Amino acid sequence: MLEIEMKFPTADFVAMQQHLQRMKATALAPIDEADHYFNAPDRDFAKTDEAFRLRSIGANNRVTYKGPRQPGPAKTRTEIEIAIEAGAAAADQWRQMVQHLGYRSTAIVKKRRSIYQFKRDGFDLEACLDEVETLGKFVEIEIVADASQKQQAQEVLMAVAKELGLEKSEPRSYLEMVLAKGAPGSPAQK
Amino acid sequence: MLEIEMKFPTADFVAMQQHLQRMKATALAPIDEADHYFNAPDRDFAKTDEAFRLRSIGANNRVTYKGPRQPGPAKTRTEIEIAIEAGAAAADQWRQMVQHLGYRSTAIVKKRRSIYQFKRDGFDLEACLDEVETLGKFVEIEIVADASQKQQAQEVLMAVAKELGLEKSEPRSYLEMVLAKGAPGSPAQK
Repeated sequence: MLEIEMKFPTADFVAMQQHLQRMKATALAPIDEADHYFNAPDRDFAKTDEAFRLRSIGANNRVTYKGPRQPGPAKTRTEIEIAIEAGAAAADQWRQMVQHLGYRSTAIVKKRRSIYQFKRDGFDLEACLDEVETLGKFVEIEIVADASQKQQAQEVLMAVAKELGLEKSEPRSYLEMVLAKGAPGSPAQK
Repeated sequence: MLEIEMKFPTADFVAMQQHLQRMKATALAPIDEADHYFNAPDRDFAKTDEAFRLRSIGANNRVTYKGPRQPGPAKTRTEIEIAIEAGAAAADQWRQMVQHLGYRSTAIVKKRRSIYQFKRDGFDLEACLDEVETLGKFVEIEIVADASQKQQAQEVLMAVAKELGLEKSEPRSYLEMVLAKGAPGSPAQK
């Protein structure tokens, strides 16, 4: 499966929420996410455009690998996500394990995310209103589609962005923005 | 925590079971384990004496990292084990993820394991009667102890081995034995 997404800086969540309500999107309860990113022992994920992270949402933990972005106006990449044992102790064990394997902690990205789910042209879409620590407010719109539907999914995503009045997408990931800022509290990237 | 263990080839599980019953060990139901081992992209675990594997017991999956063995008559090493999502699909996702990260499949070790649990001198011990595909029958006795109790735990383990009439321990792991045999069905180690 491919994750296709676009991200936009925004100042006004209220207008966005009104737009999404008009589109009959379902609002989920806001969640606090902490993403702990690691870099590889054999290559630099900043250069290969990959990501490997532990995401903790409350007590729930999951591990995500993201492959290099593929060309196109929206962000398209392989994504593999696997739930691991819940709880802070399991998260710590995970960190210890990947560090034994040679992975290095690069940054922790924390955000409060409000997810809105809706359908368009047979696709399932999500809009995430993200308030990101040290970075500010963003809207991320996302489709998960089979690789064979890549082109069509990208077009739907562009149309939805236009409808929501979203302009000037931010191509960088939150991780890249946090590292670019050299945010205090983030371990230095080697 | 340290895992301290010794392994012995054996021809006769029946005599061993009688010994363990006299020691009032609790017998668990036999389980079928499939261990899928991977090698690292940045170093050779056969040389660094580490191991990284996915163990599937029925639908349950867990990931294990084992650090280099420490000196001593019994096998003592760091072990980190984390449960991941259950099911064959999650196991496949895991394999895909570590292969994206650069890990290579080295071998799959399959065994039927009958576990006997007992206590000795305040320690929790396990004896595993293992019937290993292509390798035959082995008894593995094991203590998990805090690093501060390493010496004492090793002495208890040696005493239990003697009591069970176990001699000539096998220092190699099942993985090492399978690779040494070049067992058919195991992917070649690069």
